[in-house]
Amino acid sequence: MIVILRIGHRLRRDERISTHCGLVSRALGADKIIYTGERDEQIIESIKKITKKWGSGFKAGYSESWKNVIKEYKKKKFFVVHLTMYGLPYEKEIKKIKQKRNLMIIIGGEKVPWEVYEAADKNIAVTNQPHSEVAALAVVLEKLNRKKPFRKAEIEIVPHERGKKFRL
Amino acid sequence: MIVILRIGHRLRRDERISTHCGLVSRALGADKIIYTGERDEQIIESIKKITKKWGSGFKAGYSESWKNVIKEYKKKKFFVVHLTMYGLPYEKEIKKIKQKRNLMIIIGGEKVPWEVYEAADKNIAVTNQPHSEVAALAVVLEKLNRKKPFRKAEIEIVPHERGKKFRL
Repeated sequence: MIVILRIGHRLRRDERISTHCGLVSRALGADKIIYTGERDEQIIESIKKITKKWGSGFKAGYSESWKNVIKEYKKKKFFVVHLTMYGLPYEKEIKKIKQKRNLMIIIGGEKVPWEVYEAADKNIAVTNQPHSEVAALAVVLEKLNRKKPFRKAEIEIVPHERGKKFRL
Repeated sequence: MIVILRIGHRLRRDERISTHCGLVSRALGADKIIYTGERDEQIIESIKKITKKWGSGFKAGYSESWKNVIKEYKKKKFFVVHLTMYGLPYEKEIKKIKQKRNLMIIIGGEKVPWEVYEAADKNIAVTNQPHSEVAALAVVLEKLNRKKPFRKAEIEIVPHERGKKFRL
């Protein structure tokens, strides 16, 4: 099981980036995303809507305390990975992470509290360059390779060389 | 050489997503990003600032016409890849794309004109699910594996297990 923890969400300013984090999590094989920071029912609703239309049992939720979320999942024996530009290179670390069955992946915004670095079992960097939490999450999830079929979809794309093809 | 073409940028609404597109391009081995849509000096400036501080000769620019940009790079024999959820699976296509020395990768926003699908040499999907152009770009650039050192950086991160370490 892979659970994503998106910390420090800010209303309006982070709306699209945080939504992208949720959709990427779902598309690339995670099971759930939990947001902390400012409560934002809209992004949770929009992810639920997409999950209903496009399938899979992906879950999205909110918690007031990232500390409690991490504590809870550590108790459940999840291995906690924090994605940060200051961390160790993912190219070397991904093999070890792949072996863990239950993973929590933490992605932050601009200011991540020091305790997150401490609480994580691994601090991992997708390059030590400034870029995007959406991108870092995508690269790591893609490497973990846990993509699964999207069940109960109302709509499905038929891959095509040129143009748009659906199956309803 | 890898050139990214980000089409359909909208002021304010796309500011952060488009900036992330630029930073991801730079961090994961592209050489240049060209924006079309509404002219936005601010994102170009912020990418230039980061390039100055963090190194590399990455370029960012604007064009009024995506059609002209594609035409220009096709003339220069660039292989044009369009990332779209409707395209063919990247897992299968990436090998062929890897062999092309000069690549243009097109990423769009919500409404991509039909002619882009036609103009591209390949329409590629990073999953046929709705998620994020930032994520799709990151996954494909990572697979292409053209990351290079960041020259003339004013600042550099020393990867670390826990915490933040710099070299100036």
